[in-house]
Amino acid sequence: MQKNKSHATNPPLLSPAGIFAYQAEGFIGDYQRLVRDTVVPYQYSVLCDKAPDTEKSHVIQNFKNAGALLRGEGAADGFYGMVFQDSDAAKWLEAAAYLLSLFPDKELEKTADEVIDLIAAAQDEDGYLNTYYTLKDKNRRWSNLQEGHELYCSGHMMEAACAYYEATGKKKLLHVMEKNAEHIYSHFIVEGHEGYPGHPEIELALLRLYRATGNEHCFALAEHFINIRGVDSHFYEKEAARRGWNIWNSNPSNREYTQCHLPVRSQSDAVGHAVRAVYLYTGMADLASMTGDKELFAACKRLWESITERRMYITGGIGSTVIGEAFTVDYDLPCDTAYAETCASIGLMFFASKMLENEIDGRYADVMERAFYNTVLAGMQLDGKRFFYVNPLEVTPGISGVSPTHLHDLPARPGWYACACCPPNAARLISSLGKYAYGENKDTAFCHLFAAGKVALSNGMRFFCKTEYPYGFTVRYEIEKGGNLAIRIPAYSPDFQLEINGAALPEGSPSYRLERGYVWLKVKDNDVITLTLDDAPYFVYASSKIPQLTGKAALCRGPLVYCFEGTDNGGDVLSLSIGNAQRDGKIPVPVPESEKAALKEGLPENAVVLSLDAERKAGTDSLYTNTRPGVTPCRVTAIPYYTWGNRGENQMRVWMDLS
Amino acid sequence: MQKNKSHATNPPLLSPAGIFAYQAEGFIGDYQRLVRDTVVPYQYSVLCDKAPDTEKSHVIQNFKNAGALLRGEGAADGFYGMVFQDSDAAKWLEAAAYLLSLFPDKELEKTADEVIDLIAAAQDEDGYLNTYYTLKDKNRRWSNLQEGHELYCSGHMMEAACAYYEATGKKKLLHVMEKNAEHIYSHFIVEGHEGYPGHPEIELALLRLYRATGNEHCFALAEHFINIRGVDSHFYEKEAARRGWNIWNSNPSNREYTQCHLPVRSQSDAVGHAVRAVYLYTGMADLASMTGDKELFAACKRLWESITERRMYITGGIGSTVIGEAFTVDYDLPCDTAYAETCASIGLMFFASKMLENEIDGRYADVMERAFYNTVLAGMQLDGKRFFYVNPLEVTPGISGVSPTHLHDLPARPGWYACACCPPNAARLISSLGKYAYGENKDTAFCHLFAAGKVALSNGMRFFCKTEYPYGFTVRYEIEKGGNLAIRIPAYSPDFQLEINGAALPEGSPSYRLERGYVWLKVKDNDVITLTLDDAPYFVYASSKIPQLTGKAALCRGPLVYCFEGTDNGGDVLSLSIGNAQRDGKIPVPVPESEKAALKEGLPENAVVLSLDAERKAGTDSLYTNTRPGVTPCRVTAIPYYTWGNRGENQMRVWMDLS
Repeated sequence: MQKNKSHATNPPLLSPAGIFAYQAEGFIGDYQRLVRDTVVPYQYSVLCDKAPDTEKSHVIQNFKNAGALLRGEGAADGFYGMVFQDSDAAKWLEAAAYLLSLFPDKELEKTADEVIDLIAAAQDEDGYLNTYYTLKDKNRRWSNLQEGHELYCSGHMMEAACAYYEATGKKKLLHVMEKNAEHIYSHFIVEGHEGYPGHPEIELALLRLYRATGNEHCFALAEHFINIRGVDSHFYEKEAARRGWNIWNSNPSNREYTQCHLPVRSQSDAVGHAVRAVYLYTGMADLASMTGDKELFAACKRLWESITERRMYITGGIGSTVIGEAFTVDYDLPCDTAYAETCASIGLMFFASKMLENEIDGRYADVMERAFYNTVLAGMQLDGKRFFYVNPLEVTPGISGVSPTHLHDLPARPGWYACACCPPNAARLISSLGKYAYGENKDTAFCHLFAAGKVALSNGMRFFCKTEYPYGFTVRYEIEKGGNLAIRIPAYSPDFQLEINGAALPEGSPSYRLERGYVWLKVKDNDVITLTLDDAPYFVYASSKIPQLTGKAALCRGPLVYCFEGTDNGGDVLSLSIGNAQRDGKIPVPVPESEKAALKEGLPENAVVLSLDAERKAGTDSLYTNTRPGVTPCRVTAIPYYTWGNRGENQMRVWMDLS
Repeated sequence: MQKNKSHATNPPLLSPAGIFAYQAEGFIGDYQRLVRDTVVPYQYSVLCDKAPDTEKSHVIQNFKNAGALLRGEGAADGFYGMVFQDSDAAKWLEAAAYLLSLFPDKELEKTADEVIDLIAAAQDEDGYLNTYYTLKDKNRRWSNLQEGHELYCSGHMMEAACAYYEATGKKKLLHVMEKNAEHIYSHFIVEGHEGYPGHPEIELALLRLYRATGNEHCFALAEHFINIRGVDSHFYEKEAARRGWNIWNSNPSNREYTQCHLPVRSQSDAVGHAVRAVYLYTGMADLASMTGDKELFAACKRLWESITERRMYITGGIGSTVIGEAFTVDYDLPCDTAYAETCASIGLMFFASKMLENEIDGRYADVMERAFYNTVLAGMQLDGKRFFYVNPLEVTPGISGVSPTHLHDLPARPGWYACACCPPNAARLISSLGKYAYGENKDTAFCHLFAAGKVALSNGMRFFCKTEYPYGFTVRYEIEKGGNLAIRIPAYSPDFQLEINGAALPEGSPSYRLERGYVWLKVKDNDVITLTLDDAPYFVYASSKIPQLTGKAALCRGPLVYCFEGTDNGGDVLSLSIGNAQRDGKIPVPVPESEKAALKEGLPENAVVLSLDAERKAGTDSLYTNTRPGVTPCRVTAIPYYTWGNRGENQMRVWMDLS
């Protein structure tokens, strides 16, 4: 096992902060409490089929039934739901684990323990764990990797097991999943069965399980799945021909959809199902950082650039089409028919986070921040009760959600779906945000995101971060225990001020260095570092290679993309042009607190709303007119994109006309 | 049969010119010769499976095989092609008939006679005629109206029969189709079987057959199909349940797709498959003009307004989505993913023409002209050899035809398809253009379109029209035999000049009246009427209710919509803005002949190319930038939309940015 050893010689450049390392306050803290108080309890009621007005989930019952069947007490037809239904329990458990690390809660821990008992009881003697196959047809195990999601469900459960172990020290689920990993190892490595996961996820999970357990088989299995993917790019076709049955009518020849068109080290364009893609790339980047595999990292970097330089929305959304929930081609970024799934942006954050372990560069964290503050947060209603899976950058009631090409782009968040991927994914992301905000290595603390709260790293460094980010742009680090500090400087703020203990550090000061988007400085105990970023709203222009965005601009402030909703703008944003504000160089300004009350209720208390000059074109019902429409100057209001759709159905637009 | 008699008391306000009435010259004449020399001969070679590099058609062989089977000489499995394959022969025959009226041709007539002999021999004793069912399974006749296209194929063959009879006086096919109509009458009226056509067409064809033969059953059958449509709106669902087999997997519950969601007199929104819709509406308008049915005409008018006031592209294209080749919702008119099928715009011309028989109003002919000079002509390569079925208003190589949402929007015309609906439809339309350009009633000649050539109407009026339209805007009518003349004044030219024998007729002159888009005047033998229309290029603005068109303008001249192609504009039209030309009120000008040679070869000799001021934004590969891109003034070139895609794959855009 030569390769298994090579990784030890190449530790990642940094590791994410442990789950106890960050105790959030402020903006992030509020969101974590929302997940605790609303999302996770509601999801548990869904899993138990006790949530009103929600489609039957049957997740808990599936585990109960599978356990009963294995004990010879139940019938074989007790499964209900999607083939990946088990993963809902896994994501819930993972989120619950993070919450326990943040907010100790005996009741929640007891519930989680009970769920784990059910899961453990549903594991077959040989380590196999999947209620769909256990209840439906044991003989079909491992015969439909393309559609079957067995490896996907195992992967999510491995993540849950690691998180629960980290949060509680309890090893029951960890042992269950180690046994499951051994079963999979045995099938694919010892017995040498062909194939790789239809929906990547287990790769990143196995590496995590390896870190938690030290089990070399986990590492070897992750490496195996990554290495063989796409080597036989016709595997799914052969598998489909061999088995002669389907779960859906997936096309096994669509090799880009499942990212098996090429061996991963030869891939360059981000293609196919966007969530599968970024989960795969996360595993690849994770493996690369552990092995120092330069070829693999080079592939990750090409794929990263393919996404972020040619296939990503300004909101950090990815996946331009509903057809396959997938990437399309370079510069094809329609606003109104976007897919931009919440889960895909969460996966993009995973990928960014793992890229940082290979290469410390602010552009990774910039994208992580962009995805988080815009698409990921937009995925959740402000009250945590409803969710967008799809995050368009423009909606027009009457067209969005109605026209056959726009059925997926809804003007309002629906409730919990039968396919409940996004809400629990958002829950586990938000409740573990410290892992993405902060990182460390033996002598350095990395501040990737500006997240208020207390940070205590395993390298001994401790500090408190005070900020009202993303609405305030001063970030104060009160150092309790010093060391090296690497703070990201966002690309939107090339101008920034840095002070130590009240004394400005001018540009070029030898007290710090600025390298690839991070300022590096030594801090001593009790130092206070103050970073002030640019808080001026700014316009963003798109490449004219994006056909849908020519002649338009978007408004941003800090990491937040803004949008214009009808409710603030006379019911009609389509007739607005912000070209005069942009031409005159007039900077949009925050609406003063005194006037904010005039805005409709339903926005967050702390939200900064922007006001700017605009022009409104005379409206007409006629499709076409030979007369140039008259124009009236007006004042318009923009709100943070993530807050849209919280005040009833209305028009919403991110990219505004400049004409 | 009370209703059958009522129509006689309500003759249409006008009738289309007979097929011998118009001998074209100039622009239309050139197109008719192209159809004669290229399209129709090529199509015949396709029908006979003799065209190189084209999918097998088998149309002629299907008729031969069906005839042989009926004589007991053949096998039952001799069918190949689509279920509506027979209609290809019908459309070819119809176009051939029109060509024979324009260009007597013994060879072509002999070929057509032979085809008719084959068709006649493929008719069953009881009058049934359809090679698919005759060859595949006689017992399935009339059991799948939703998908089966039996009535559709009969309809097209009835049209061919009428045209061939009109052109040659030969009645063989007319008798075949009258017998076929009697068979259908017997099945649906006498025997009382339920159902109505899945693809409307036979309604308008039966009315035409009624006019050619006087057979009251044809009229009654047309009226029956129109009257019962949508009365039992669940008919297709019941039919599907009853038969238990499918040709495609069409959804019988999608009632809007087949326009049976409501009885036709209650319909208001143009919905579903766009070609089916306009064929149905054409039949409805035809029936309304024959019966004076005000309720039916009111429905036609609502549907007309739904299309032309809320669901039509500036090019006269209809059908906003490839999903069902269908209408979507009001103001949803994406340029790059448009369907805008050539056949649908041809059908829109049919509908417009029949609306004129109910109500003389220039807006119907305006739309007919818009559809013809833009979408219909764009459907055909300038050399008549390749065809667009789909007519987008914007293409970007690399996205169009490649992205999963843009697969149907091709940047270049493909060859002849297996489903060969559009090319022969364009052929029959162009070769019968006189029917759309000119109309008559007992004392009046109607000039709906400006079509050069000789006109001799059955009311005795005769004149010669001289014009270089759509590139020249003077139209000279040299009257040989006088009467009343009604000439449409296009909506784009509210200012016009009218002269009789060289003397201007000022506005308000008692010598003519202007009413609903037509000037009416009395003309004497040897009078010369000269109409001069506005030839100035003009910008068109879209309603801001169309999300995809805000901030943009299109350039037109006369009836021609212009577009911008990369090949004339430095390879990149996406970075261009024409806002400065539009803001300064600078009128684009025709490129002088001396400079036209500098344009790439491949445009029509007579085409007027426009030149105008514009600005080019600095390009960038980066998706997004916080810096406003620099702008360089430049001169750009626009070409008529119908000529696009004739000079290799490149960017094309109709709606240009104004910012």
